[in-house]
Amino acid sequence: MQPYELSLAEAADAIRARTLSPVELVDSVLDRIEKVDPHLEAYVTVTVEQARRAARTAERQVAAGRLHGPLHGVPVGLKDLIDVAGTATTASSRVRADHRAQTDSTVAARLTASGAVLIGKTHTHEFAYGLTTPQTTNAWHPDRVAGGSSGGSAVAVAAGAATFALGTDTGGSIRVPSALNGVVGLKPTYGLVSRHGVTSLSWSLDHVGPITRTVEDAALVLTALAGHDPRDPASLAAPGPAYRPGGATELSGLRIGVPRNYYFDHVAPDVESAVRRAMGELERLGARLVEVEIPMTRYIQATQWGLMVPEASAYHERTLRTVPELYQADVRVLLEAGELMPAGDYLRAQRSRTLMQQAWSRLLEEVDVIAAPTVPATAVKAGDETITWPDGTVEGVSDAYVRLSAPANITGVPSLSVPVGRSTAGLPIGMQLLGRPFGEPVLLRVGHAYEQTRPARRPATVPRTEGLGQRVPTVTRTGT
Amino acid sequence: MQPYELSLAEAADAIRARTLSPVELVDSVLDRIEKVDPHLEAYVTVTVEQARRAARTAERQVAAGRLHGPLHGVPVGLKDLIDVAGTATTASSRVRADHRAQTDSTVAARLTASGAVLIGKTHTHEFAYGLTTPQTTNAWHPDRVAGGSSGGSAVAVAAGAATFALGTDTGGSIRVPSALNGVVGLKPTYGLVSRHGVTSLSWSLDHVGPITRTVEDAALVLTALAGHDPRDPASLAAPGPAYRPGGATELSGLRIGVPRNYYFDHVAPDVESAVRRAMGELERLGARLVEVEIPMTRYIQATQWGLMVPEASAYHERTLRTVPELYQADVRVLLEAGELMPAGDYLRAQRSRTLMQQAWSRLLEEVDVIAAPTVPATAVKAGDETITWPDGTVEGVSDAYVRLSAPANITGVPSLSVPVGRSTAGLPIGMQLLGRPFGEPVLLRVGHAYEQTRPARRPATVPRTEGLGQRVPTVTRTGT
Repeated sequence: MQPYELSLAEAADAIRARTLSPVELVDSVLDRIEKVDPHLEAYVTVTVEQARRAARTAERQVAAGRLHGPLHGVPVGLKDLIDVAGTATTASSRVRADHRAQTDSTVAARLTASGAVLIGKTHTHEFAYGLTTPQTTNAWHPDRVAGGSSGGSAVAVAAGAATFALGTDTGGSIRVPSALNGVVGLKPTYGLVSRHGVTSLSWSLDHVGPITRTVEDAALVLTALAGHDPRDPASLAAPGPAYRPGGATELSGLRIGVPRNYYFDHVAPDVESAVRRAMGELERLGARLVEVEIPMTRYIQATQWGLMVPEASAYHERTLRTVPELYQADVRVLLEAGELMPAGDYLRAQRSRTLMQQAWSRLLEEVDVIAAPTVPATAVKAGDETITWPDGTVEGVSDAYVRLSAPANITGVPSLSVPVGRSTAGLPIGMQLLGRPFGEPVLLRVGHAYEQTRPARRPATVPRTEGLGQRVPTVTRTGT
Repeated sequence: MQPYELSLAEAADAIRARTLSPVELVDSVLDRIEKVDPHLEAYVTVTVEQARRAARTAERQVAAGRLHGPLHGVPVGLKDLIDVAGTATTASSRVRADHRAQTDSTVAARLTASGAVLIGKTHTHEFAYGLTTPQTTNAWHPDRVAGGSSGGSAVAVAAGAATFALGTDTGGSIRVPSALNGVVGLKPTYGLVSRHGVTSLSWSLDHVGPITRTVEDAALVLTALAGHDPRDPASLAAPGPAYRPGGATELSGLRIGVPRNYYFDHVAPDVESAVRRAMGELERLGARLVEVEIPMTRYIQATQWGLMVPEASAYHERTLRTVPELYQADVRVLLEAGELMPAGDYLRAQRSRTLMQQAWSRLLEEVDVIAAPTVPATAVKAGDETITWPDGTVEGVSDAYVRLSAPANITGVPSLSVPVGRSTAGLPIGMQLLGRPFGEPVLLRVGHAYEQTRPARRPATVPRTEGLGQRVPTVTRTGT
């Protein structure tokens, strides 16, 4: 097995045991990037020299017996919304061509303090305002979308082009690409992980979180990221538990909610059957499946968009006036629409969010966890703009991809997406586990237990594609 | 001395010592209302029979040795935005002609549980959306405004027509009428006192708090009111300290901030000199006066109005469409203007609030308390719409009355207004003390210490007015 194929926990163990050096690991991942990224375009920038320098430093520290913890010497890709001092944060946009971050974001600083080695910045749908990441290709199929907006991060992790990565999630942007590329994505509780130094899409819905190949890895990363940061006004004092799941996979006494409405409406049959099969595994592990009614479902879409659209426009107000032509058309139209929205519509969305939070809080007294599909379909073909459901309903891809993710953004509850197999076409399927605020330990325990029932997952065998020019439109790659 | 002249603490002591019965106290206050309220119009409804019944019950409980605490048997007036089961909440508006509350607001329930006796509902500027309370007359001068929006509560307490009262404060509505009528008003920390069952003006700025004749009384009422309430989404877990100030009036070691900007700009000379004299008293008690710079002052007005106006319009959306003609003209024009406001303006105000909260948090590390005028002028003549300052600047009365109060609403910090004497025309002047979030114990200690340096205050000798019809316009008195 090549070092790039190791999970974070495996790599950490090998580095601690001195059977693997950080330099070997980083070189292996850099080689993998060189081989696969021309086909995937997961990265905006690969920080080759910095990564090699950091790996050598990490190696010396290992030799000196000074390990910084489980991330020590492990290469990480950061979504290119996350500031790293001295490097560009392009947000995959021409608007940011001249951008250069002065200081580290809190999450970048925390990863560095934990010994992680930054290996590059990954592509996002422009400014995180979309669900496909058109620059990047799905790790499992050359014609399929990466999902978004953290498409670069999910594809890099899936393909072995990063041992782990960070993404951001405003309406599903960590979980959607994780599900579509067969990796683990965790959207933590709102306020648990600082957004300081991370380009905002919609500050009342934005989250930062890990994308990894195993649930255990997500727990290791979350441990490094979580904690109060006064520079993020929404940051909360974290309870600070141990996130790493133990070895036991027994789930007796745990009540897992199975939605009888909403989460299985307009869901592709292969997705539904994979998720229900995974629920069956949880039951076999001792959990009790309990039917639950999802509240206020007809307000979900209006609330998500009613909050996100004006906040995004407020954030981009200045550049939208000065350099509107630098935005991609899909993003620009959303930003311009947001400027026309009345305050009353935004306030209705805020009030509806409060009521939804209360209703979900009551729901999460009935059960410990809710299990549901992450995305209602597998990765669509690049360029497809709609999904047609068996009953003839036509739904926009963005609407479909946001639909099952949005409740966790609106309510702020944590949601963990875990791979639950692949479709007959070989495309990955994800199941999300939703929990109470700060209920990450429970989600990670359940996800880890489920994972033990399945064969170990390895990086995707990246399919070669010829003629990259025929793929989906690519924005100018700034910062490379 | 008549029972209606007693402070809450004095009345409570006398009831506990059985030298005064709740029935005597309530009857004395009801007699006082009958005598002065035709001149003041502080009350929308006087609940004579209910109050007498409650007083008799309280008396029997005293006889049986079952006191509910310091509010036991003490008559309270509630601003008519505060729900009491079975009675109307008119908000001093024709829109609410047919309203009847089904359940008690949390604060009404807490007062009742503490033994207080509801004596009536007091006038507010219509739906709390104004700073004068035109129905009501200043307790000290028949031609002057009561101030608002909790004008009825402040006038009732000042005139001996209630032993204490509750008001609400969105941009100064507890503190402004308290200052203009020579009583104590406390706007608590945002989230400390529940607003459940209280008609909202602007939910992100609304507060409920006590209006009393002494600082000690305010502490006694706050003790009964404070505490977490899951039915108010903004409610915070209170630290739950003892609010009642001790006997000591020594203030050594306390740093009191004296603003070098903003709070003394465009302030009437008699107000400024009374406030600076009071600051001198605090210095003589041992406090150290420290000059401070108030941050972000040019954003205060835009932030206050930018938050308040669209939230108010959102709250009134339905009735503004169905019965616009029932609103008074001044309120209706504000509500209609708010419907036109873009979401971007509201979001700018929200973001500016966050920055102001951070800046004030730093400011309140430099000092323990900030002292400042509550209102820049004494009560204006009823009907006056502007104030002309010595430099020729003309300012709207509402703008002037909100100006010095708004920072505490925007930032959520507590603010206590205490009387600091009267102008040569005999009109009361107030000083506000601002503190850290949950810093009420410090404010109450300082206010109480200051109060001990002054002669005991008794209710205003209410001036008789003839020809009430010549006063300011009166809205229809519903619910009476």
